[in-house]
Amino acid sequence: MAEKVKIAIDLMGGENSPKKNLEGIDLFVKRYSNINDYIFYLYGDETKILSELKNFKNIKNNYKIFDTKIIVSDELSAISSIKKGKNSSMWNSIQSQIDLSTDVTLSAGNTGVLLVMSKMILKTLDNVDKPALAGLWPNEKGMNVVLDLGANIECSEKNLVDFSEMGSALFKSLFPNEKAKLALLNIGSEEIKGTELLKSTFTKLKQLDQFGDFEFQGYIEGNQITKGNSNVIITDGFTGNIALKTAEGTANFLTKTLKKSLSENLFSKFSVIFSYFSLKKFKDKLDPRKYNGAIFLGLTGPVVKSHGGTDGLGFSYSVELSYKIAKGNLIKKIKENLSHTKNLNEKV
Amino acid sequence: MAEKVKIAIDLMGGENSPKKNLEGIDLFVKRYSNINDYIFYLYGDETKILSELKNFKNIKNNYKIFDTKIIVSDELSAISSIKKGKNSSMWNSIQSQIDLSTDVTLSAGNTGVLLVMSKMILKTLDNVDKPALAGLWPNEKGMNVVLDLGANIECSEKNLVDFSEMGSALFKSLFPNEKAKLALLNIGSEEIKGTELLKSTFTKLKQLDQFGDFEFQGYIEGNQITKGNSNVIITDGFTGNIALKTAEGTANFLTKTLKKSLSENLFSKFSVIFSYFSLKKFKDKLDPRKYNGAIFLGLTGPVVKSHGGTDGLGFSYSVELSYKIAKGNLIKKIKENLSHTKNLNEKV
Repeated sequence: MAEKVKIAIDLMGGENSPKKNLEGIDLFVKRYSNINDYIFYLYGDETKILSELKNFKNIKNNYKIFDTKIIVSDELSAISSIKKGKNSSMWNSIQSQIDLSTDVTLSAGNTGVLLVMSKMILKTLDNVDKPALAGLWPNEKGMNVVLDLGANIECSEKNLVDFSEMGSALFKSLFPNEKAKLALLNIGSEEIKGTELLKSTFTKLKQLDQFGDFEFQGYIEGNQITKGNSNVIITDGFTGNIALKTAEGTANFLTKTLKKSLSENLFSKFSVIFSYFSLKKFKDKLDPRKYNGAIFLGLTGPVVKSHGGTDGLGFSYSVELSYKIAKGNLIKKIKENLSHTKNLNEKV
Repeated sequence: MAEKVKIAIDLMGGENSPKKNLEGIDLFVKRYSNINDYIFYLYGDETKILSELKNFKNIKNNYKIFDTKIIVSDELSAISSIKKGKNSSMWNSIQSQIDLSTDVTLSAGNTGVLLVMSKMILKTLDNVDKPALAGLWPNEKGMNVVLDLGANIECSEKNLVDFSEMGSALFKSLFPNEKAKLALLNIGSEEIKGTELLKSTFTKLKQLDQFGDFEFQGYIEGNQITKGNSNVIITDGFTGNIALKTAEGTANFLTKTLKKSLSENLFSKFSVIFSYFSLKKFKDKLDPRKYNGAIFLGLTGPVVKSHGGTDGLGFSYSVELSYKIAKGNLIKKIKENLSHTKNLNEKV
């Protein structure tokens, strides 16, 4: 790609916008000071943006501002947001993929509204029934892509197979030197376990293994998500959402309990000084802000959703994710992968 | 209960049996040296038991041994186990509830076989379609009861309502001084979220709230399981199993990462010495052995399943759980609670 990657960003979504969004962009630029093959298309209230921009010295000539006064509020329903929201920063940042050939859209606004708008503007890819929400999830050996995380609470075999092909494409566009090792989330690892839906999906994925989009590893249980033997984990949106949030809750609970143990008395307080650096490293490694960003898969263009409550550092990782997805040719890879599903269906 | 609580224990199930089972009983007796209102009915190979018993000095006159030579092996399927398994230690420890009026059965053997045998011998309670598997899950304020953990991968509204009444009864029999605060696991806390099944169950539970068996708290998401605002968490067996194992996996992952951070270099190794006691406290509090023991609910008698791979300490907590369930009149409470569901159905 000789041309610059065009990253469209809705600056008005999430808490403390546009400040934290600009801070995130600034941190990304600083972190990747060795590259400059990108340009930001920034959507939001120009006056506010310009007044904030003074504080962020790394953002220089690598952006264009598109003044949009309307903001999609978190309090509105999807339907009323869309009524009011055409010409909003969110809408325009998505629409830019069509009007201005931007490569990816990033927003920290309301997930439901972002999904509905993205579907309306970008449309789903041919042969995809339902777009999915994918996320990153650290494991012992690196990183998982997990989907669906909540866009579809009930799924068919076709949906799960599509998710598999799209998730593998996402993994390969983020980690081009690694193999996509795919697993279906289930309540046992034996072939006879689980629902009829999972069993028929299992059979289909075994057949699709031949195309090399992924190595199919079979079923895994919840405790193996973090093992790292597989790195693309497929499940329906209900189960995926419960698993993700349960993991978040468990991590919070453990961290709180650890903190409490380490501050209970003078002796343990003293010990904290000695273990400060080790614990800092531990915290850094598992900092959820580093995995910030969920990806809508199955549309004609990529849309990344940042956590609304994250800070500048968290937002900077969703900028990084958007950049990598665009550089990694996600949509092209998805189309290639999905053609294999189609081939198989025609053969059968 | 003037009579002694009769705890029937299958000594031959799980790893390192009967040694670890006897060690667990010994630890329980030691921990509860102030009470002696119980008697153990021990099932297994008498020669082996007697040779091991010499090492456990706390177990004195509070037991009877029932010599059973047949062991249910972990390798057999449920069907062949049952064919061969009548007269096994597992079978007889369950049968004792009928023949010898024991109050509760405990086994660390194969879960599937134990569930099938328990159903065959004890039968399900009137008006209960499906027994469920309930477990303990620590939260910030105390302890949750969570069910179903995997006995039923697909559930109806009636099943989930029955689980609610039975889970609340279990909570009250374990923690008589606390209120059962019930929540339905879902992917959002708003009433409009989730599947049709969850929505209709929600409506039913709201109506059942009036009987005082539980306070219905509505929906919770996965990250709130450990918050402690609710303490009886209801879900289908597929979701419950995924949530439980994901939490286990996350805890393992975090603990491993923490250990690694604390042993990476000399300085951090040194720090471990200082934080040893604080970290030990942390580990003790969250030691999964303390929550060892899942309970089959919905049968005419209580059956507790210990983790097969646990050690003596872990087994001692499942002995404690069995004792508390019997003392807390679990089955009586379940019947009372279920009568409210029946009343409501007849009224409607």
